[in-house]
Amino acid sequence: MISGQTLQTLSSILGPEHLLTRQEDLIPFGTDATKLRFMPEAVAFPGTPEEISRILQLANQELFPVIPRGAGSGKSGGALPVEGGLVLAMDRFNRILEIDRRNLVARVECGVITARFQEAVEKVDLFYPPDPASIHISTLGGNVAECAGGLRAVKYGVTRDYVLGLTAVLPTGEIIKTGVETAKGVVGYDLTRLLIGSEGTLAVVTEMVLRLIPKPASRRTMMAFFDSASATVETVSEIIRSKIVPTALEFLDRTCIGCVKEDMGLAVPEGSGALLLIEVDGDEGLARKEAKRVKDICTRRGALEFRSASRLRDSERLWEARRNVSQSVYKLRPDKISEDIVVPRSRMAEFIGFLEELASRCDLPMAAYGHAGDGNIHVNILFDEKIPGQMETARAAVKELFAKVIALRGTLSGEHGVGITKAPFIEMELSRPVLELMGRLKKAFDPRGILNPGKIFPYKI
Amino acid sequence: MISGQTLQTLSSILGPEHLLTRQEDLIPFGTDATKLRFMPEAVAFPGTPEEISRILQLANQELFPVIPRGAGSGKSGGALPVEGGLVLAMDRFNRILEIDRRNLVARVECGVITARFQEAVEKVDLFYPPDPASIHISTLGGNVAECAGGLRAVKYGVTRDYVLGLTAVLPTGEIIKTGVETAKGVVGYDLTRLLIGSEGTLAVVTEMVLRLIPKPASRRTMMAFFDSASATVETVSEIIRSKIVPTALEFLDRTCIGCVKEDMGLAVPEGSGALLLIEVDGDEGLARKEAKRVKDICTRRGALEFRSASRLRDSERLWEARRNVSQSVYKLRPDKISEDIVVPRSRMAEFIGFLEELASRCDLPMAAYGHAGDGNIHVNILFDEKIPGQMETARAAVKELFAKVIALRGTLSGEHGVGITKAPFIEMELSRPVLELMGRLKKAFDPRGILNPGKIFPYKI
Repeated sequence: MISGQTLQTLSSILGPEHLLTRQEDLIPFGTDATKLRFMPEAVAFPGTPEEISRILQLANQELFPVIPRGAGSGKSGGALPVEGGLVLAMDRFNRILEIDRRNLVARVECGVITARFQEAVEKVDLFYPPDPASIHISTLGGNVAECAGGLRAVKYGVTRDYVLGLTAVLPTGEIIKTGVETAKGVVGYDLTRLLIGSEGTLAVVTEMVLRLIPKPASRRTMMAFFDSASATVETVSEIIRSKIVPTALEFLDRTCIGCVKEDMGLAVPEGSGALLLIEVDGDEGLARKEAKRVKDICTRRGALEFRSASRLRDSERLWEARRNVSQSVYKLRPDKISEDIVVPRSRMAEFIGFLEELASRCDLPMAAYGHAGDGNIHVNILFDEKIPGQMETARAAVKELFAKVIALRGTLSGEHGVGITKAPFIEMELSRPVLELMGRLKKAFDPRGILNPGKIFPYKI
Repeated sequence: MISGQTLQTLSSILGPEHLLTRQEDLIPFGTDATKLRFMPEAVAFPGTPEEISRILQLANQELFPVIPRGAGSGKSGGALPVEGGLVLAMDRFNRILEIDRRNLVARVECGVITARFQEAVEKVDLFYPPDPASIHISTLGGNVAECAGGLRAVKYGVTRDYVLGLTAVLPTGEIIKTGVETAKGVVGYDLTRLLIGSEGTLAVVTEMVLRLIPKPASRRTMMAFFDSASATVETVSEIIRSKIVPTALEFLDRTCIGCVKEDMGLAVPEGSGALLLIEVDGDEGLARKEAKRVKDICTRRGALEFRSASRLRDSERLWEARRNVSQSVYKLRPDKISEDIVVPRSRMAEFIGFLEELASRCDLPMAAYGHAGDGNIHVNILFDEKIPGQMETARAAVKELFAKVIALRGTLSGEHGVGITKAPFIEMELSRPVLELMGRLKKAFDPRGILNPGKIFPYKI
């Protein structure tokens, strides 16, 4: 509980206009893309790392939880105030500080919206590849906290691969800089990558130094329909084996196609069981050549239909529809559990087969789509909470699903993080000594456990 | 001190044939590429992670230092037994366990020589890019410990970018797996990247899961001579600004050219003040086009001469000579201090100017070469220990050099690590709270401080 006196101290640190305490103002800060709901006791909008430092020192004295929050677009509940406390809304850290074209480096604050940053760098003909489906909402700080991936990860990697250094406030209040502003650097332990993907439990990141690359000269988007998911997956394997490195290699199963076909504004050929969205990029000549090779492979693999997006607007519409799949599947049922497992690419066919069997056995729609090029599949288990038993069936299905993923030497999360939704299952993947070590690391950062408690670990650490 | 009884226990864990204790057998394990000398008390050649686990448990009981060692090619003293103790020579962990062509992933043991692994993957038309100059000697485990870079880092990144997961033995004896075997994964804290570059101070890595990429179809090597270092550096800037991403962009100053020109077997044009070695790769058409653009830029920037290596053998000879620069500069003086600082690419000209002024002021040869594309310059300060005062002058020059690097917002090490040679200077780069946090992390792994003590930190932690 944050006492009245502590609220007054917070108000004097932040200025009263940057502190919310009225119940109805707090509600939006208690939920996120998981649709789960908790109530914070107050919401702070700090303006400087120094203010955050003072708030964290106060939290250490008064022992209240502090929960950093970006856009609240997270899918594992990382920003939820599960134990109450103070939400640290990072909205005011919204400046792009520098785009350095000579060094291909940018300095940005954590609250900058991903898409806004991408537009700014593309304007000067540079490129920041990470593109989570939520780019129009998500913040770069949130992307760092979860190590967000996205559609282009198969070629360009994930957020981790573009962060050179960070400014962060430790839970005990010290403001630190990690990493470098240069292309390389190995001085001391890699605090930068340790903070990336730590889901806001180790420090409050306020600023990032990001690596940029030249903007590819040309892009080509293609779409292929297949009669079955397994045919799609085999095609993906052949594309990878053929040494083509597509920018994106996105898979939608039959259920997803049904949900998005209207939004895509495209006729779906009879008998379509799955769809592959493929993008290649690079030098004009190379992109043309690779597009031709992709087409040949799709045709040889029995694609029902193959289309090239001839105009940029067509292509944008396809990607927009792809980004909206997660939302579109709500057409099927009012509730869902959304996972983002990864299996080795060579095991995808087996995984998809298992999923179809599981859906049929549970009698619940399960929509699968995602980054086939990475083996990273978003599985959405749909249900209606109001129908007795459905939620329990869905939850039991998750457990079976995870067991299969582990048996296939995969991982429970490719890009959404553990948060609270996967915490109960983390022991399926990580051994006891690994969890204990992670617990000791958490303590090395946050001895009193005030920063984003209740996340990642299935028990109090 | 390791007692006689402890040596007996070690012998029974390892088998007597895998434990060295005779003074003269120990000598080679007390030095490395730094030429510094320390004496271990014994050298163990463990064969399994379980043996390592038992050794580390014993070390925790008996409190003796354990120092993991790959090939001893490290340049910052990371493998040196500075406080005596037991060297853990990882030579027997020398198997390539799997090269999985469908998933573009390999599993290897830590003692595999980097070049041997590269050959094995290239045989199946895949590619493992990290290529430290010591590839023919260095081990993959050593590369992971230091986060080795190399000539191709400007395009392909460093060791960190190719490690998906690790098997490691914690200093307290637990055998853990970190990371994933899949393309992506974000479950729990990123122990994989925390161990990479931790210089053997946090755990003993025994096995790695490495990411592979398709082998580029074509490569072109070029060489350009310029009248001054600053002209070279300006050319590098223009190449980067022009959005060409060369595989390698290597710089040699006048002093280095003098040392290697015979080995390179090439006439050096009159008035050459610096040399640029450039490689582009990729699809045949693209490589040809980029090579042409590189040539145009070099010519426009006033190159004294521009050459293309027409045959593969020519090109191999150039790269071999480049890899040997570090050795060749000993022609100038019997002793050297070798650094690998990084500055932002845009500050390289200023740095090179400073270096020339410093060399002239100190009246010592300073040879600079390295990865101009990354801003990562290997500065070799040459001296003769036997001439009174020279070593002191060299050491004072290092301190000045580092101060300049920090002022230019650079870093003290791009790929060699801190080890013992840079430990006294680490506070120039890292703040006190950062060092204290790193000390707490070290303790979270190694509460009794038995693993590779005396490294990275300038004081006992």
